[in-house]
Amino acid sequence: PSVGAGANGSLAAAARAQVGPPTNPMATALLTDQYQFSMAYAYWKAGKHADHAVFDLYFRKNPFGGEFTVFAGLEECIKFIANFKFTEDEISFLQSVMPMCEDAFFDYLRGIDCSDVEVYSIPEGSVVFPKVPLMRVEGPVAVVQLLETPFVNLINYASLVTTNAARHRHVAGKSKVLMEFGLRRAQGPDGAISASKYCFMGGFDATSNVLAGHLFGIPLRGTHSHAYVSSYMSLDEIPDRTLRNKDGSKICKDFVSLVKEWLCKIQAADSLRNVFGDTNQSELAAFASYALAFPSSFLALVDTYDVMRSGIPNFCAVALALHDLGYKASGIRLDSGDLAYLSIETRKVFHAIEKEFNIPGFGKMVITASNDLNEETIDALNKQGHEVDAFGIGTYLVTCYSQAALGCVFKLVEINSRPRIKLSEDVAKVSIPCKKRCFRLYGKEGYPLVDIMIRESEPSPKAGERILCRHPFLESKRAYVVPQHVEELLHCYWPGSSERSTTS
Amino acid sequence: PSVGAGANGSLAAAARAQVGPPTNPMATALLTDQYQFSMAYAYWKAGKHADHAVFDLYFRKNPFGGEFTVFAGLEECIKFIANFKFTEDEISFLQSVMPMCEDAFFDYLRGIDCSDVEVYSIPEGSVVFPKVPLMRVEGPVAVVQLLETPFVNLINYASLVTTNAARHRHVAGKSKVLMEFGLRRAQGPDGAISASKYCFMGGFDATSNVLAGHLFGIPLRGTHSHAYVSSYMSLDEIPDRTLRNKDGSKICKDFVSLVKEWLCKIQAADSLRNVFGDTNQSELAAFASYALAFPSSFLALVDTYDVMRSGIPNFCAVALALHDLGYKASGIRLDSGDLAYLSIETRKVFHAIEKEFNIPGFGKMVITASNDLNEETIDALNKQGHEVDAFGIGTYLVTCYSQAALGCVFKLVEINSRPRIKLSEDVAKVSIPCKKRCFRLYGKEGYPLVDIMIRESEPSPKAGERILCRHPFLESKRAYVVPQHVEELLHCYWPGSSERSTTS
Repeated sequence: PSVGAGANGSLAAAARAQVGPPTNPMATALLTDQYQFSMAYAYWKAGKHADHAVFDLYFRKNPFGGEFTVFAGLEECIKFIANFKFTEDEISFLQSVMPMCEDAFFDYLRGIDCSDVEVYSIPEGSVVFPKVPLMRVEGPVAVVQLLETPFVNLINYASLVTTNAARHRHVAGKSKVLMEFGLRRAQGPDGAISASKYCFMGGFDATSNVLAGHLFGIPLRGTHSHAYVSSYMSLDEIPDRTLRNKDGSKICKDFVSLVKEWLCKIQAADSLRNVFGDTNQSELAAFASYALAFPSSFLALVDTYDVMRSGIPNFCAVALALHDLGYKASGIRLDSGDLAYLSIETRKVFHAIEKEFNIPGFGKMVITASNDLNEETIDALNKQGHEVDAFGIGTYLVTCYSQAALGCVFKLVEINSRPRIKLSEDVAKVSIPCKKRCFRLYGKEGYPLVDIMIRESEPSPKAGERILCRHPFLESKRAYVVPQHVEELLHCYWPGSSERSTTS
Repeated sequence: PSVGAGANGSLAAAARAQVGPPTNPMATALLTDQYQFSMAYAYWKAGKHADHAVFDLYFRKNPFGGEFTVFAGLEECIKFIANFKFTEDEISFLQSVMPMCEDAFFDYLRGIDCSDVEVYSIPEGSVVFPKVPLMRVEGPVAVVQLLETPFVNLINYASLVTTNAARHRHVAGKSKVLMEFGLRRAQGPDGAISASKYCFMGGFDATSNVLAGHLFGIPLRGTHSHAYVSSYMSLDEIPDRTLRNKDGSKICKDFVSLVKEWLCKIQAADSLRNVFGDTNQSELAAFASYALAFPSSFLALVDTYDVMRSGIPNFCAVALALHDLGYKASGIRLDSGDLAYLSIETRKVFHAIEKEFNIPGFGKMVITASNDLNEETIDALNKQGHEVDAFGIGTYLVTCYSQAALGCVFKLVEINSRPRIKLSEDVAKVSIPCKKRCFRLYGKEGYPLVDIMIRESEPSPKAGERILCRHPFLESKRAYVVPQHVEELLHCYWPGSSERSTTS
């Protein structure tokens, strides 16, 4: 068998250097299903391995019962193929688990890379729809077949969680801050890293995942945990109580006493009478200590003991003491209870303090909410009315609780220029044959109307020209469209070696 | 601030060398929530960072509406702490995102590792229950706090998917072969690798994930895909039709003709009359070609066109031709349609062929089923009756569709020998304070009766001695138990440096 791509070692190396390695070092050429190797061997045995195949990657149904999907994962796919090459260690392993295969097959595997593969794709981050190919992957059938599993793996969860993030953004509204807090609930380390990356792509503002911040430059956010609060017992545990004014002009020698004074003032204030009870002193100590560490960005978790009786007055006392020294506290986080009620009551207290002590802006302190939030709970909060400014969302976001998989498929549609189809009793599972081009047609107001697929040999649709669009499965669904603007959807992201060699 | 663990560099290096790196290279000390670093700084600022803290890791509710959980992820946690150390690059990144922190804090971070941390844990793979700690982690509060997120991340999904696999094993029965096919539906590369590892731990027999096979030695299984079948057009595409007998004694010059002869015989056989129609020739070519590549392990996917009219007779013709040459085909895979009906009809055909052509064992050919299987669908198949021998399970298994997160928590229960509690309006969320020892009490027949927690200072329960067991939250739930056997649940998996130095 001929070794097409192996001859192009230097080009492949150049491509690798240009694209960089996959984010996850485990995304190697062995990250595939065993049967892909079985098929590669069967193709090779039959001398079919170099047949030119065209595969479409697409999904059949929008997730979450919705009407759109956001496509993501392309960059990782390109990194994967740029680095696609078997090591000797991997070849040895394959030989050990496929002892029935001829040695020459492993020489063939040693030689292959993705120099002869072409990838056409919709741009990452695009809104996409069922059945229209997200990617078209062409090349030697045995090589492209080995890409099926990793491509579907890299795109399936990426697109699903990006879509989920976009849906959360939609329900929360543009003005809210959305933070991804899913690290501890994702599928292991890199499930979490993917979640952080793609939630940011889907419209989130920040993550709590430090490694994702490091890898992708995503802004980091977070407060402290209940453990921090409960680790304190009393104010005596704060040895160094000094805090320099924000402008550096003077030093407050006993910040803790200042906090205590403010707590008394709040408790005595007419406008706040009967709101607050005795507060928890270990919580007060934890807040004061945290403020001494982060005077410019003090944000407190207020529900360790009792939000309205203890957490809020303790927070306000510390925030007011900080204010005396020129600092502005950031706000609070609620992690349990009736978030609508608690946020509204908290906002009332903030406004009352602003008025009572004449502190402009205190009423606008940020209220963050977390605790098993999802699309439905945010929608419910919207309906009840709430005063939350920022949402921290974890489990439901990153696990995509309401639909845990997108179901992308990678189907052969053409081989050696002949169309191929996969039949099924379930008509939705029948693949759409032929190498295709895909277009998005736009109407007068600049909004997209419909995505269409045509055979490669057919003429492209043109702006201003009437075109008959037919549903691929429902014959009665058809419409004439006169697009004002036509956008080709699939762009070349990885040219075959012939094209690369002319440009290098 | 003192740098406790840093002085023990050589011990830490020795521990690392002994334990090995985490499976996922991304499981680094940065894989944590941003607020863990904020808290570490606040502890450090207050001089509390070295306070001796005890944390319990536990979950509150069994997943999947079930009555048990299988604990997994311990090995990865131990690898994580054995390799816990910040690189200069990581320190620089932390400095860039925490510009408000003093330089000396980063010197402190440079010095820490897990030499002063102790980990006590239930053995990996144990059946465990809510509220009883799976792990107790002790050490300097700032360091142990940094372990919260990675530990919960490494245990949450691992335990969830292991439990899910065990539940699938339970419903499928001991005699069935269970194969994990989830690579393309998991949360990225390492979600998939974790899934393969922990499904094997939970009782699966094999995986399709080649990298998981390489990393963990899990047996690999798989067939071919629909794409392989549809890549063929006719029998003319098989250039080399020779196949040597299994015993090497002679060579069949035209295996394809032999297959065709068998197809005619099947179609003409009295006992099979009217069962089969004309079969699809591209499918027949794909099967024959696959058999030429894998004569000793021929397993065919039979639903590309029509299972009973085409897939089964084509498979049988190839299997019978292989039989002529001394080979034994493995069986078929069904990936769509009514799996109960199709498996039963297929089994009838296999038995009819065994009888008609006197081929002992043909009736027992393996029938594998896949296609969105889960606990419920397998249970439904059991109720309907079926002839499936092996199940390939993907999406529902690895995404844990019916409950996508376990919800492990990591709570401070003691600091400097003083008990700590986290209160909540939701009583189930109240943490159980104090450093604990945990025991499983066994009854007369050797079955476990109950798991109990006691304070470290209390006397251990003893076999034959009556003990009053009380539910932690429901006062009326209490019972006297006289155990026949007592098993301590938490074992030391990572001793503190003092103990390690005495043993090294």
